[in-house]
Amino acid sequence: MTTTTERPLTRRQRWEQRTNLPLMVLAIAFLLIYAWRVLDTRASPTLDITLIWADVAIWAAFAVDFAVRLYLSTDRGRFVRKHPLDLLVVLVPPFRPLRLLRVALLLLDSLNRATKPRTRLMTFVATSSLLILLLCSLAFFDAEYGAPDSKIKSFADALWWSAVSVTTVGYGDVYPVTPEGRLVSLVLMTLGIGLISFAIGTMTSWVVEQLKTVDEAADRTERTLAELVEEVRSLRAEVAELTTDRETRGG
Amino acid sequence: MTTTTERPLTRRQRWEQRTNLPLMVLAIAFLLIYAWRVLDTRASPTLDITLIWADVAIWAAFAVDFAVRLYLSTDRGRFVRKHPLDLLVVLVPPFRPLRLLRVALLLLDSLNRATKPRTRLMTFVATSSLLILLLCSLAFFDAEYGAPDSKIKSFADALWWSAVSVTTVGYGDVYPVTPEGRLVSLVLMTLGIGLISFAIGTMTSWVVEQLKTVDEAADRTERTLAELVEEVRSLRAEVAELTTDRETRGG
Amino acid sequence: MTTTTERPLTRRQRWEQRTNLPLMVLAIAFLLIYAWRVLDTRASPTLDITLIWADVAIWAAFAVDFAVRLYLSTDRGRFVRKHPLDLLVVLVPPFRPLRLLRVALLLLDSLNRATKPRTRLMTFVATSSLLILLLCSLAFFDAEYGAPDSKIKSFADALWWSAVSVTTVGYGDVYPVTPEGRLVSLVLMTLGIGLISFAIGTMTSWVVEQLKTVDEAADRTERTLAELVEEVRSLRAEVAELTTDRETRGG
Amino acid sequence: MTTTTERPLTRRQRWEQRTNLPLMVLAIAFLLIYAWRVLDTRASPTLDITLIWADVAIWAAFAVDFAVRLYLSTDRGRFVRKHPLDLLVVLVPPFRPLRLLRVALLLLDSLNRATKPRTRLMTFVATSSLLILLLCSLAFFDAEYGAPDSKIKSFADALWWSAVSVTTVGYGDVYPVTPEGRLVSLVLMTLGIGLISFAIGTMTSWVVEQLKTVDEAADRTERTLAELVEEVRSLRAEVAELTTDRETRGG
Repeated sequence: MTTTTERPLTRRQRWEQRTNLPLMVLAIAFLLIYAWRVLDTRASPTLDITLIWADVAIWAAFAVDFAVRLYLSTDRGRFVRKHPLDLLVVLVPPFRPLRLLRVALLLLDSLNRATKPRTRLMTFVATSSLLILLLCSLAFFDAEYGAPDSKIKSFADALWWSAVSVTTVGYGDVYPVTPEGRLVSLVLMTLGIGLISFAIGTMTSWVVEQLKTVDEAADRTERTLAELVEEVRSLRAEVAELTTDRETRGG
Repeated sequence: MTTTTERPLTRRQRWEQRTNLPLMVLAIAFLLIYAWRVLDTRASPTLDITLIWADVAIWAAFAVDFAVRLYLSTDRGRFVRKHPLDLLVVLVPPFRPLRLLRVALLLLDSLNRATKPRTRLMTFVATSSLLILLLCSLAFFDAEYGAPDSKIKSFADALWWSAVSVTTVGYGDVYPVTPEGRLVSLVLMTLGIGLISFAIGTMTSWVVEQLKTVDEAADRTERTLAELVEEVRSLRAEVAELTTDRETRGG
Repeated sequence: MTTTTERPLTRRQRWEQRTNLPLMVLAIAFLLIYAWRVLDTRASPTLDITLIWADVAIWAAFAVDFAVRLYLSTDRGRFVRKHPLDLLVVLVPPFRPLRLLRVALLLLDSLNRATKPRTRLMTFVATSSLLILLLCSLAFFDAEYGAPDSKIKSFADALWWSAVSVTTVGYGDVYPVTPEGRLVSLVLMTLGIGLISFAIGTMTSWVVEQLKTVDEAADRTERTLAELVEEVRSLRAEVAELTTDRETRGG
Repeated sequence: MTTTTERPLTRRQRWEQRTNLPLMVLAIAFLLIYAWRVLDTRASPTLDITLIWADVAIWAAFAVDFAVRLYLSTDRGRFVRKHPLDLLVVLVPPFRPLRLLRVALLLLDSLNRATKPRTRLMTFVATSSLLILLLCSLAFFDAEYGAPDSKIKSFADALWWSAVSVTTVGYGDVYPVTPEGRLVSLVLMTLGIGLISFAIGTMTSWVVEQLKTVDEAADRTERTLAELVEEVRSLRAEVAELTTDRETRGG
C-alpha cells in the first residue's frame, strides 16, 4: 500500500504509482455508470448501448493495466499468486465492483501513519461498508425491480432493504423474490455479520481498554519482578560490601 | 466533564458551571414538550402554537448559551472545533434531542470517581440508551401515526417497535411505512448494533476476567521468572561463599 | 454460596443450611403448579382454586423463611440491603419465578470447586437460561392463548416463539398481540441479548485462548528475559572464574 | 487426530489409521444418498428401497467399525467414555449426519501443523458450517416440502431459509410450519449463534491483535525489565572492576 520506499522503485512499482489515481477515477466512473444503468429504468436503447460501451472500455483499461503489471513483473507466477483479486476483477464480470476496493485502499493510504491504528482500521471498514451497501442496493434493485410480486417499488426500498438486512433486523416487509436478489442478499448478510463482528470486536477492545482489565495481569508480573529486583539489589549490596571490605583491608 | 479543577476557572468555565443545571432542566422540559406535542394528537391549535413557542424559547436559550460561551472563549475557532455537537444542536433542528446528552453527562459526573469504571460506563450507556429509545419512539410515532397502512395505532406500538428494532429481533408485525419512519429506524438500528456491541464488549471483558484466561499467560512469564530467580539465588550463594571463604582466609 | 465455612455458623446460616433443600423443592413445586394452571386451560373451577391455594401456601413458606432470616440477623437493615431479590420475591408477585434461581445456585454449589471456572459458569448460565425460557414460554402462553388474533394455538407455539425471540431471528410467524405478551417478550429479548453476549464472551475468550494471541506478547517478554538470563549467566561465569582464579592463586 | 506418533501404534490405532479413509468415503456416500432420497421426491418405490438399503449398509459398516475398535481397546469402559459421539452415531439414527464430522476432522489433520492456528481453526469451522447448512437444508426440505401451507416450493427455498436463519436475519418469508421443521430450525438457530459467536470471537482477537492493545501491557513489563537489566549491568560492571582491581593488585 505504501508507494514510497527507500529502495529505488522497480519498473512495475513506478507504473502502479502512476496508474493508481486514474484507475481509481475509472472505478468511481464504473460505479456511476452502473448506478445510471440500474436506476434509469426507462433509458432509451441508444443510451443503454452507450453505457454498456463505457463499461466495456473501463474493463479494457483494467485488463490492460493488469497485463502491463504482469509483463513488468520479474516473477510472473508469483505476481499472479499475490494479486488474485486483481485477476478476478478482470476475468469474472460479477467481481467488477471489487475495483472500488482501490478507493478504500487509497483512502487508507492517504491517512497519516501517525493516526491511531483504530482510527485507520475504522475508516477503511466504514468506507468499504458504505460502498458495499451502495453496490448491493444497486444490484438488488437491478434484480428485483419489476419482478412479479416484487417488494421493491423504488431505489429507496432497495436502500432500506440493505439497512434492514445488514443489521440482521429483517422485519420482512422487504425481501428478495428472485434468485439473483437472494444471491445479493447472501452476500450482504454475510458482510453484515462481518461488519457487526468488526464493530463488536472494536468495541470489545475499547471496553477492555477502558476497564484496564489487563492491568491486573500486569500487576502480578510486576509484583514478581519487584521481588526479583529486590533480590538483585541485595546481591549488589553484598558485592558492594565485598568491595568496600577489601578496599578497607587493602587501604 | 469535571467542573472543578485546581487552576482558577476561566470566565467561560464559570459560566458553564452556573448554566449547567438550568440547561439540563430546559433539556428535560424540551423532552416533555416534544412528547406532549407528539402524543396529544387532538391538541387544539392554540395549545399547539403554545408548545411550538415553548420549543422556540428553549432553542433560543441554547443558542444564547452557545453564543455567550463562544464570546467568553480565548480561542474561538478552537472552541467551535471542540464543541461540534453543541453547534449542531443549535443550528440543525433534527439534532435538538442531543441536548439530552447533558442529562447523561451530568449523571456520569455525579457518580463518584471512586466507583468502578465498569459501573460508570454502564450507567452512562444505560441512561443514554433509555433516552434514545424514548426519543426514537416519539419521533417514530410522530412520523408513522395516521399514515396510510401504518402499523402504529398507539404510542405503545411505537415503544414496542423500538424494543423489537433495537434488539434486532424484527418480528415484522410493526415496521415503518413512511420515509421519516425509515430514517428513525436507521438511527435506532445503528444505535442498536452499538448498544449490543457495548453489551457484548462489557460481557466479554467480564467473562474473560472471571475465567482469568490471562492468568495462564502470566503463569508462563512467572515460570521463566522463577528460573531466573533461581539463577540469581545460586549466584548469591556463590558470592556469599566467596565472601565467607575470604573471611576465613583473612581471619 | 458455600454453606460450610471454618468459622462456627451463625444461627441464620444454620437456618439457611437446613431450609435450602425444602425451599428448592417448593420452588420446583411452584414451577409445576404454575405450568399446570397455565397449560390446563379447561381446568374445573375446583382444581383451579386448589392450585391457587397451593401457590399461596408456597408464597407463605417463602415469606415465613424471609421473616425468620430477618429475625435471626444481627444487622437487619444490612440483611435487607444484601438480599433485595429475596424481598422482591416475597413482596412483588410477578417476581415469584425468581425463586427458581435457588435451583441454579444450588446446582452451581454442587459443582466441585475443582471444576474449571468456565464449566461452572456455563452450567449456571445454561440452567438459568433453560428455566427462563420455560417460564417465559408459560407466561407467554398464559397471556396470548385465546386472545383475539393470537398466533398461539398450543404450548408448542409458545416454546417455538421463545426460541425464535431469544435467538433474535424473529421470523414474524409468531409474535405477541397482547400488552402482557409484549412485556414477556421484552423480558425475553433483553435476556436473549444477555445470553448471546455471554455466549460470544465465552467463545471469544475460548478463541483467544486457542489462538494464543497472548503468546506473542509473552514471547516478547521471554525474549527480553532470555537476554537478561544471558546477562546473568555471563556474570556467573565471571564470578566462577574469579573464584577459580583465586583458588589457583591460593593453592 | 495425529495418526503418527513416535511410540509404536496400538492395534486399535493401526485399525483406525487403515479405516479412516474408507469411513470418510462412506460418510460422503451417506450424504449423497440422503440428498438423493430427500430431493428425488418422485422416486420409484424400487429406487427408494435401494437407497434405504444403502443407508442401512453404511450404518452397518460404522457399527462394525465401532465394535472392532471397542474389541481392540485395552480399557473398553474408557473407550466408550472417550468416544460418546461415535456411540451416538451408531445407536441413535438422527445423529447419523455427525459421521460427516470425520470429513472436517480429516481436513483439519491434512493441514500442516505449521499453518497458523487461526487458519486451521477457521478451516475446520468453515467446513463444518457448510456441511451443517447443507444437512439442515436437506432435513428442512424433507420435513416441510409438501406440508400444508408450506413455504418451501423447492430445495433453493430450503437453502435460502438456512441462510436467513443462521444469520438471524429472519425475514419471515420462509419459516417452518411442521414440528420437524421447527426442530431443524432450533438446531440451525443454535448453531447460528455458535457460528456468529465464533466469527465475532475470531474477529475480536484479530482486531485486538491489529490494535496491539496488548503492546501497552507488554511495554509496561518491558520498562520494568529494562530497569532490571540496567541494575544487572551495573552489577556486572562492579564485578568486572573488582576483578581488574585484583588483577592489578596481583600483577
